[in-house]
Amino acid sequence: MNQIILYILLVLGISQMTMAQNPLSNKYDLMPWPKEIKEKPAKFLINSDVTISIHSEHSERVRNAAVNFIRRLSARTGVFFNEGFPLENKKGTIQISYDEVVTLNLKADESYTLNTNDSLIEIKAQTDLGALRGLQTLLQLTDHNSSTYFFPGISIFDAPRFVWRGLMIDVSRHFHPVNVIKRNLDAMASMKMNVFHWHLTDDQGFRIESKAYPKLQELASDGLFYTQEQIKEVVTYADHLGIRVIPEIDVPGHASAILTAYPELGSKADYHYAIERFSGVFDPTLNPTLDTTYVFLETLFAEITPLFPDKYFHIGGDENEGKHWNENQEIQKFKKKHKLKTNHDLQTYFNIKLEKILNKLGKKLMGWDEIMTPDMPTSAVIHSWRGENEGLPNGGSLIAAAKKGYQTVLSNGYYIDRMLSVEHHYSNDPIKNIELTPEERSRILGGEATMWSELVTSQTIDSRIWPRTAAIAERFWSSKDVNDVENMRKRLKTVSFRLEELELTHIKNKAVILRGMTNNQDISSLETLTNICEPLKVYARNKDGVEYKTYSPFNLFADACIVDAPDALIFNQHVTAFIKTPNNNNQTAVLNCLYKWAANDAQFSKLRMNPKISALNTLSKSLSNASKGLSEVLQNEDISETTIDQIQSNIDILSQEFMDTEVVIIDALNKLVSYCKTNLKTN
Amino acid sequence: MNQIILYILLVLGISQMTMAQNPLSNKYDLMPWPKEIKEKPAKFLINSDVTISIHSEHSERVRNAAVNFIRRLSARTGVFFNEGFPLENKKGTIQISYDEVVTLNLKADESYTLNTNDSLIEIKAQTDLGALRGLQTLLQLTDHNSSTYFFPGISIFDAPRFVWRGLMIDVSRHFHPVNVIKRNLDAMASMKMNVFHWHLTDDQGFRIESKAYPKLQELASDGLFYTQEQIKEVVTYADHLGIRVIPEIDVPGHASAILTAYPELGSKADYHYAIERFSGVFDPTLNPTLDTTYVFLETLFAEITPLFPDKYFHIGGDENEGKHWNENQEIQKFKKKHKLKTNHDLQTYFNIKLEKILNKLGKKLMGWDEIMTPDMPTSAVIHSWRGENEGLPNGGSLIAAAKKGYQTVLSNGYYIDRMLSVEHHYSNDPIKNIELTPEERSRILGGEATMWSELVTSQTIDSRIWPRTAAIAERFWSSKDVNDVENMRKRLKTVSFRLEELELTHIKNKAVILRGMTNNQDISSLETLTNICEPLKVYARNKDGVEYKTYSPFNLFADACIVDAPDALIFNQHVTAFIKTPNNNNQTAVLNCLYKWAANDAQFSKLRMNPKISALNTLSKSLSNASKGLSEVLQNEDISETTIDQIQSNIDILSQEFMDTEVVIIDALNKLVSYCKTNLKTN
Repeated sequence: MNQIILYILLVLGISQMTMAQNPLSNKYDLMPWPKEIKEKPAKFLINSDVTISIHSEHSERVRNAAVNFIRRLSARTGVFFNEGFPLENKKGTIQISYDEVVTLNLKADESYTLNTNDSLIEIKAQTDLGALRGLQTLLQLTDHNSSTYFFPGISIFDAPRFVWRGLMIDVSRHFHPVNVIKRNLDAMASMKMNVFHWHLTDDQGFRIESKAYPKLQELASDGLFYTQEQIKEVVTYADHLGIRVIPEIDVPGHASAILTAYPELGSKADYHYAIERFSGVFDPTLNPTLDTTYVFLETLFAEITPLFPDKYFHIGGDENEGKHWNENQEIQKFKKKHKLKTNHDLQTYFNIKLEKILNKLGKKLMGWDEIMTPDMPTSAVIHSWRGENEGLPNGGSLIAAAKKGYQTVLSNGYYIDRMLSVEHHYSNDPIKNIELTPEERSRILGGEATMWSELVTSQTIDSRIWPRTAAIAERFWSSKDVNDVENMRKRLKTVSFRLEELELTHIKNKAVILRGMTNNQDISSLETLTNICEPLKVYARNKDGVEYKTYSPFNLFADACIVDAPDALIFNQHVTAFIKTPNNNNQTAVLNCLYKWAANDAQFSKLRMNPKISALNTLSKSLSNASKGLSEVLQNEDISETTIDQIQSNIDILSQEFMDTEVVIIDALNKLVSYCKTNLKTN
Repeated sequence: MNQIILYILLVLGISQMTMAQNPLSNKYDLMPWPKEIKEKPAKFLINSDVTISIHSEHSERVRNAAVNFIRRLSARTGVFFNEGFPLENKKGTIQISYDEVVTLNLKADESYTLNTNDSLIEIKAQTDLGALRGLQTLLQLTDHNSSTYFFPGISIFDAPRFVWRGLMIDVSRHFHPVNVIKRNLDAMASMKMNVFHWHLTDDQGFRIESKAYPKLQELASDGLFYTQEQIKEVVTYADHLGIRVIPEIDVPGHASAILTAYPELGSKADYHYAIERFSGVFDPTLNPTLDTTYVFLETLFAEITPLFPDKYFHIGGDENEGKHWNENQEIQKFKKKHKLKTNHDLQTYFNIKLEKILNKLGKKLMGWDEIMTPDMPTSAVIHSWRGENEGLPNGGSLIAAAKKGYQTVLSNGYYIDRMLSVEHHYSNDPIKNIELTPEERSRILGGEATMWSELVTSQTIDSRIWPRTAAIAERFWSSKDVNDVENMRKRLKTVSFRLEELELTHIKNKAVILRGMTNNQDISSLETLTNICEPLKVYARNKDGVEYKTYSPFNLFADACIVDAPDALIFNQHVTAFIKTPNNNNQTAVLNCLYKWAANDAQFSKLRMNPKISALNTLSKSLSNASKGLSEVLQNEDISETTIDQIQSNIDILSQEFMDTEVVIIDALNKLVSYCKTNLKTN
């Protein structure tokens, strides 16, 4: 057989064998993982002569991306580049080309090819967006040995699985200034995300300047809002990153802020509307029977929509429980007169009027899945937030919407404020194994991670969004069969670290919070505790929405803790390995964790106590006691009932909540106790 | 004697005895230290019932400051306040009052009184500015025991020594976005500073949007500039903090950026003007003989001045070496024609024309001290940057200006980019012991720390400004006799830590840089090195301005290091103490440092090497070797010439530069060697 053909067959064979997950993902920490990737024997050295050139129509996006690429590469490698800007009229050692500069929209092609050789790197794409995506991949390929940095020889073809890969940020419950939004846009772009959904209004604040209705920001924002200039600044910034911006003005519910400014539009007369300080679902609702309501919304939308060039406009529409509608006789009469049986019908009436207003303004209405009522036209876009756990059939409102003919976007399973593991989100495939016709499939645009901010301030928001959202971004971009959790975790670790280059605070702000808690003492013992504790999940923190107000402190122990507590993850793996194979190595790995925790309370006890940390005393003591006991038992292979009882009682204490966190090594500790009981001899 | 009179005399006596430095400064970490402070037996508990009320005409400043006060107090204490905003129409437990709301200006009174009692705190001031200053002092008084936070019983009267207490930030050499400026304004306000001098233009970039001359930002900023809206945003933000904003448009020198956009205004025909990438003093200079130059400046100033309500306007005027003037025959003819003998005379001609333009616009011209030529009217304000070290007589240009009749502001001695110790700046009294008439004294307005940004990016700028600038702020606010360096250092430590509340990155970004250097490995060994190394001083880094370009990496080892390296400071004190009194305690203190360093290289050697850290290998090895040797010698009281020689040779190696830093324990190490040689027996 011809050797070349043999080689081709071999390559094809390997790539088919590894279809499930490319073994190169053990070597390269790319995220999202590309569609096709091949290694080749080459090495492009990163030295001061590296230059970059763009060989296509001018694109402000690509120009900016190229400058940022050079800056980040220089910062990452320490290499002093001779040229700090893309070359003009000359070929660089990194060459970028694309066929057209596009306006951001759902159909814009984002594919690219990337080829690295010894002395030349080429990024080619159909659109300038594809070029952006390719540059991000190239940056992730930066590698080094002890004496030099380089790009490995590689050939990539890449394209996304879904066209809508979004992140929603709620800026109402807590306001997040422009720079916080910008750095998160940078992070999104580095993960090839392309939709920023800006939840601009809610009960807790109206966050966008209106010149037509200035009371909105004057009376309903506590002074925390974006000027129209700032909105434009963010939208332009996002556009340069290839990110569409979808604004959300949440109506008719979630309207406490709007009605604080314009109570005459409310459904309940003589009600004292005020900016909401708690969390939850509240009663203030726009009155859908008033002409003035529609005048207000039409005027407001006419003012706001030009700031957002994207075609999609989100009107919220969620969680209207209709209490104030029920209490208003005029509204009830209106329902009868218009043959609207239920409040849902009334809201559909409202939504359909809004859709007409938005259509006139050239916009497509999008709303949370409550808007999907029988009369709602399929021109609306359904944002699916409810699934099987919310009582819906398999596939939730997403699949239902697609089958009914709506375009739809999935957020169910991507509520990152629920504080669930990255594994949970990563394993949530939008389509699962549900059979769809090509038309139905094409209506599923993609998904959005949602960062609701009831318990999140600008100090902590990065650590709530990242790194988990990077794994969600991969779920939206990469093939369905890129789904190995351990491999994802390995790559995510690098990705998370690299996000610090973009001024993200998800790593560094932990120490800030702990320094604050200790009043500038040694934080190492608290750090150890944060590494095995996670914030309470699924809204168990802030029960009923009344433990915290919007202005309560959010720099407490729970705020320093993160999901996927790193030491817990490691310990749990060690324990599993040890119980499966109780050899010396595995025992040592377990013991080293236990020793560290056993010693931790001595360190903690040295702290000058204050009210912010004294509540951790029990946690610290019980952890050290349980760990000390267990390590002694494991070491001595010698066990008495008293000892085990003491260990168990400490573990039971650790199973409580501590300052809105839970200790996430309980199962592993209990497994160790069981192991000891079963396998070690009793005195 | 009447007991009351006795008491009064006693109090007066005590206060005179302690005039030098109030002993309460050992107890309270206030900075700047207030004018008068007394303790009293009281304790105001900080619980959820704390409220704040304002009993005077509305001041947006005070309202904002009160809200920020509550937020910061809540974050600091973890207390959940019931009321998150100042009370209206009700008396709070913290009451603020003032006589008038003022427009910011040189003469605005900033004094205040602060009285804390068990259940009531009162801040009273002549102006709303005074109230702001008082709130900052109160926040600094936050104290705690193990179970509660409280304000101690205290009575303060406070007022500043100088009316001009400024910080200059150069945003040309490296651009610093709005959020970086804002957080530094917050920090300034917390140190009661009241002038932000914004160095907006220089050879490396023109950073303010001009609608009249848009090429300035289009061609001469690399896209990094403030829009006029952003300028307004910052000016308003500063005003709310009681901070005046003085813009600087540096002319006629430092003009490479301006001339990149409008080369026709340059002094040298056919010269290729381009944004400067290096540092230093460059030749491009406006042509002062052209009418168009003045049309340009008048139009530009007319556009810019309304953005800055303050009366003072800085025109730079420094470091024009006149090379291009000398080379231009037309300019030479012009000089002859106008009887201008020197280039200084020509520049004075230029400055006087500028002063007239600015006067018409209602502004007072301010410039660096080169503008102080014999013909310059005394209506100009002299910004003194040259002193005795620059060859001027005692008191430098500051005293000269005051004696000649100019208002003047001191920056000589406060160049924080020179990387000198906080002690150096703190000990630099503006007036020293120079005798001045009251008129002369009144012309010395105060001073400004200057943050030139050739070697400073947004990632590192906070660590270059803070905490040293807090000590400079105290020099400008507090009495001359508040000058105990050790006491200042103790208070500064707390102040520096508290600045993290304002999102300053001066502490947390060290770890970010080190994580980047190690590619996310254990940074503890590098941290140890940064704690004894300081960035090269007085421009020894970036020799001749050509080692670094503006786009070179500034996240290297030197950028992680800070002035006043903390471990070095401690070690140097221990060594001094030990040599003075070589007892066990003092020896142990020295040995503990040496042990830590001796062990450090083992940790460092575990790192997977890369080009960013491999250059530290020699530093790490020599430090460990010298420390190991010295600790063995000290412990054994046994010394051979070979051992000492080896130690000495390691110290000699440590005396080199390492990646643009110097090791600042060399003197102490050498002292230890001498001590050993002299006092320990030789084998």
